[in-house]
Amino acid sequence: MTAAELAARVGGTVDGDGAIDLTRLASLEDARSGDLSFLAHSRYEGAMVDTRASAVLVRKDWDGKCSCTLIRVDSPDAAFAAAAEALGPEVVHFKAGVHACAVVADDARLGEDVSIGPCCVVEPGVVIGARTVVMAGCYLGHGTVLGEDCKLYPHVSTRERTRIGNRVIIHNGTVIGSDGFGYVAGEDRTWMKIPQIGTVEIGDDVEIGANVTIDRARFGKTVIGNGVKIDNLVQVAHNVRIGDHTAVAAQVGIAGSASVGGHVQMGGQAGVSGHLSVGDGAIVAGRAGVTKGVPAGEFVSGYPAMQHGKAAKLRAHMMRLPALKQRVAEIEKELADLKKRLDKVS
Amino acid sequence: MTAAELAARVGGTVDGDGAIDLTRLASLEDARSGDLSFLAHSRYEGAMVDTRASAVLVRKDWDGKCSCTLIRVDSPDAAFAAAAEALGPEVVHFKAGVHACAVVADDARLGEDVSIGPCCVVEPGVVIGARTVVMAGCYLGHGTVLGEDCKLYPHVSTRERTRIGNRVIIHNGTVIGSDGFGYVAGEDRTWMKIPQIGTVEIGDDVEIGANVTIDRARFGKTVIGNGVKIDNLVQVAHNVRIGDHTAVAAQVGIAGSASVGGHVQMGGQAGVSGHLSVGDGAIVAGRAGVTKGVPAGEFVSGYPAMQHGKAAKLRAHMMRLPALKQRVAEIEKELADLKKRLDKVS
Amino acid sequence: MTAAELAARVGGTVDGDGAIDLTRLASLEDARSGDLSFLAHSRYEGAMVDTRASAVLVRKDWDGKCSCTLIRVDSPDAAFAAAAEALGPEVVHFKAGVHACAVVADDARLGEDVSIGPCCVVEPGVVIGARTVVMAGCYLGHGTVLGEDCKLYPHVSTRERTRIGNRVIIHNGTVIGSDGFGYVAGEDRTWMKIPQIGTVEIGDDVEIGANVTIDRARFGKTVIGNGVKIDNLVQVAHNVRIGDHTAVAAQVGIAGSASVGGHVQMGGQAGVSGHLSVGDGAIVAGRAGVTKGVPAGEFVSGYPAMQHGKAAKLRAHMMRLPALKQRVAEIEKELADLKKRLDKVS
Repeated sequence: MTAAELAARVGGTVDGDGAIDLTRLASLEDARSGDLSFLAHSRYEGAMVDTRASAVLVRKDWDGKCSCTLIRVDSPDAAFAAAAEALGPEVVHFKAGVHACAVVADDARLGEDVSIGPCCVVEPGVVIGARTVVMAGCYLGHGTVLGEDCKLYPHVSTRERTRIGNRVIIHNGTVIGSDGFGYVAGEDRTWMKIPQIGTVEIGDDVEIGANVTIDRARFGKTVIGNGVKIDNLVQVAHNVRIGDHTAVAAQVGIAGSASVGGHVQMGGQAGVSGHLSVGDGAIVAGRAGVTKGVPAGEFVSGYPAMQHGKAAKLRAHMMRLPALKQRVAEIEKELADLKKRLDKVS
Repeated sequence: MTAAELAARVGGTVDGDGAIDLTRLASLEDARSGDLSFLAHSRYEGAMVDTRASAVLVRKDWDGKCSCTLIRVDSPDAAFAAAAEALGPEVVHFKAGVHACAVVADDARLGEDVSIGPCCVVEPGVVIGARTVVMAGCYLGHGTVLGEDCKLYPHVSTRERTRIGNRVIIHNGTVIGSDGFGYVAGEDRTWMKIPQIGTVEIGDDVEIGANVTIDRARFGKTVIGNGVKIDNLVQVAHNVRIGDHTAVAAQVGIAGSASVGGHVQMGGQAGVSGHLSVGDGAIVAGRAGVTKGVPAGEFVSGYPAMQHGKAAKLRAHMMRLPALKQRVAEIEKELADLKKRLDKVS
Repeated sequence: MTAAELAARVGGTVDGDGAIDLTRLASLEDARSGDLSFLAHSRYEGAMVDTRASAVLVRKDWDGKCSCTLIRVDSPDAAFAAAAEALGPEVVHFKAGVHACAVVADDARLGEDVSIGPCCVVEPGVVIGARTVVMAGCYLGHGTVLGEDCKLYPHVSTRERTRIGNRVIIHNGTVIGSDGFGYVAGEDRTWMKIPQIGTVEIGDDVEIGANVTIDRARFGKTVIGNGVKIDNLVQVAHNVRIGDHTAVAAQVGIAGSASVGGHVQMGGQAGVSGHLSVGDGAIVAGRAGVTKGVPAGEFVSGYPAMQHGKAAKLRAHMMRLPALKQRVAEIEKELADLKKRLDKVS
């Protein structure tokens, strides 16, 4: 594919040799002749000088220098995604049909062109929408409902009555619908289990990473809204609600009955305490520990999490604590001097 | 089932219409006519006004107002658990017997009415107690001993010689008995693996969440006491000991050879450093980082974790750092003024 | 085996009765007659007095008192590893060959004496080196290349085109090559997935714990160097590079495109933000949150992570904040007194 052909495909304009041939995708650093690369962030601008890429996707208004062909686009990230379909490695394809080594209940209802891999177990009452791919070793519990065009990577498991929307991607080893962590302390100081009779409901266009755990509700349901993106090793406790198009980075923990709004962004290893509410559009920085409600649109960081500007200011104050202590010591000395002088005068 | 019948079943008394019919369980907010709900915490009292539940489980001494039938009990939580058996969704039942697609060693000893699901692998020397259910895709390593009435959800795996007590529940994807993280630094600065030849021993009535990891001991054993409850994605390192009836919330990490007492409560994302001891009945707040031993009964929080009252006080001092700095600046100004006045006088 | 025989085997010298018979390994505390134990750290020296071990491995220059036979060695840890082979429990052995219940693609290339357990799925194009053991329920995606003498515990999964070196150990439930967490925000504020077309490359002599997640690169590759050791529940994001012989403790998270040098040590629950660099030989303390680059050889701790000595000093200052505030209050009082006295004089 020539640079000009690719530019047409991604809605960009060629700045340089449009006839040059592109065969592969690579980062600016790794690129060799024949490669298409991209400049997503000014952080990497330095690499533009030395890159051996044949062409680079850049923002329309990028004004740096580069000896290779530029393809100017609105969003290099989005254009790269489109280019990946043309130049990326062949995508793995799973054949429709039920593998001979899968165990599928007689009453399971499978849509058109569903693919069930080897060693999958599909329990009674399961419903799977058209074109959904369930890869090797997945377990779908009783009455699980899976929408159309979903992709479950190997070893995913769902518990009974889990409901999952359309175009949902779930990565390897993730568990949906495990019991919430709920006990009552008995008088003998042992724990009595509270039945977790609710379920989990996942919207459309959701992507969930690997080895994630999402607990079923005590009753009612744990809800993951449409378009939500969840990274690896995240914990979502019982009765949590996550609003549409929220993004949750790796190793975040959201405690029981917490409600996270829509379009929220949570950085890695952050945590939200139980029963709290994080408002729409809020940003929770990585490692932040949310211990009280976060208003819509607020950017919080630190532990306990507070408005980010305030947190940054406090941190600056803390860094200057040694200097402050020094000033207090000097004041004490001066004060003693003044006293002595005053003693002489009075 | 009528409200009166349910009250009898959970040991409560009816306050209102005992003849009303109950068919389902729901939260106060979601409840409709025919639903039983419950008020577990004063936090939710506001929802009592508007709930459309037909009946609500409340504490004996609750004196709020509600137009629906009340069922007064000692513990609404415990009563709800009992009610769930009567009104909850049908519990999934797994047939006794070994599924045709399971691979069970000839010498494995299975108790009465044991259920082994499809795609399970049971290695030589395994012993499983009566009525235990091992769901699809579990792996029981050589010589694993599982007690009676246990429930292993799909994809659980145990390594060789793991011992598990009676009535233990283990959720999907959890790993018991993986090698501890132990190496010796060689003179060439590479790591030499220290054999992890110990094992894991889990008591009775334990519940372990999803995707948890519990490492086998270097030698001797990693011990999880009776009645311990562990939430999802928790890490228990080699040679850790957890005392009876301790509860460990999600994403906690307990480092090698640490000893956590009985009746301890650990909040989510907390951590305990290696070789430390957390005393009986201690409470470790969520996200606390324990870097030295915690006395029995102590409540610690923060990082490094300290007595909670002290941590709260320190945090308050930190929040007032800007004000303190301001005071110091004012003092410096006044001091300069005083000096000038004194210069004039003397 | 006698103490003298064992000493010969581990390259040590006997101090005491060399004829004494050794049959088992145990910790100093648990040891009984017939047991060999070892003293790895002065921390445990107290246990030497009461141990009932028949013999103990100690450093050559250890000068404490013990009534049992001592076997003096350069490194008790290393000697213990050697002794484990002689006195430890029998190591589980997996037969070479493909289990009847495994599903292996026709074109997969298996080296000599490879062992593939039951319920494994090996996709087309996979290559597995000689003597490698793939235990029950593993999934090897299309074109995965596994070296010689590797050991994959049950339920490990690799995605397409993953490359793994020789003598690599991967524990249960770990996922290699899942998609990185990459999206572009569209104008309608929904997330568009960025294709993750790269791969993961793992060197020789690597060990990876249980339920770990290592994401494939956006393009290019995520790289785990030779001799790297990774503990349980660690998250390694897309395009991360970890240098040779680095050790990463449990629950650590390394964000996208971060570069961790060689011979680095990271403590449990630590985190590294995206695009940062941690230099060779650096030490990142447990729970440290690295938010800017760490120079080679530096020891950092705290959040935000800073040079450890500085972090410790700051923490000490914080602990003395109440005292500082007290001093400021006293200064204010004295200042007021001085003012009054000055008023009288002037």
